[in-house]
Amino acid sequence: MANPLHHAECLPAKPGEAPLPIAEADSLLEHLDQWTIQAGKYLRKAWAFSDFQSALNFVNAIGHLAESVGHHPDIALGWGRVEVELTTHDIGGLHRADFILAARIDLIEL
Amino acid sequence: MANPLHHAECLPAKPGEAPLPIAEADSLLEHLDQWTIQAGKYLRKAWAFSDFQSALNFVNAIGHLAESVGHHPDIALGWGRVEVELTTHDIGGLHRADFILAARIDLIEL
Repeated sequence: MANPLHHAECLPAKPGEAPLPIAEADSLLEHLDQWTIQAGKYLRKAWAFSDFQSALNFVNAIGHLAESVGHHPDIALGWGRVEVELTTHDIGGLHRADFILAARIDLIEL
Repeated sequence: MANPLHHAECLPAKPGEAPLPIAEADSLLEHLDQWTIQAGKYLRKAWAFSDFQSALNFVNAIGHLAESVGHHPDIALGWGRVEVELTTHDIGGLHRADFILAARIDLIEL
């Protein structure tokens, strides 16, 4: 089934826009691969790698994607691991843009 | 004054080696620029940048250095910020190698 998040434009939150209601966030989560919602406002996922350089390469791929869509995750990098946290600080919670970026991160070839 | 950490070889911890005593760690800390020791076993420092790409470039410079010395920090990357945490997991605390890597990170041109 086509993923509706893959080709959606990663539009930023509008001023005054509310975070996604939890039901809508849960529904979008079904289109993602092994991401979790934490504290109601963070999308998180962790990856394991066999060395540091592979993890750093993945961070660079995410960074390239983030720059291209103008939406930037928080990324934790360590030897053999990368953790990504997405939220929309301007609205204090999750926005559709977070799910769109997560879906595109899932398309990065490891 | 020359920094004794700049040209020291970044040797890994030996099996069974103890973490640095706190007095020795505090003494080495004086050779670093604005790093702090936290919980007695983490060397930490944060940097601010004016955009995401500059922060990512710095992460890559740290990564290149880490690969060259075979000692790898934990790195948190976000829009305009990088935080580095150094510790030596094998010995459960700080090793001279952590201070040597920190001193070399301080030499990276921003």
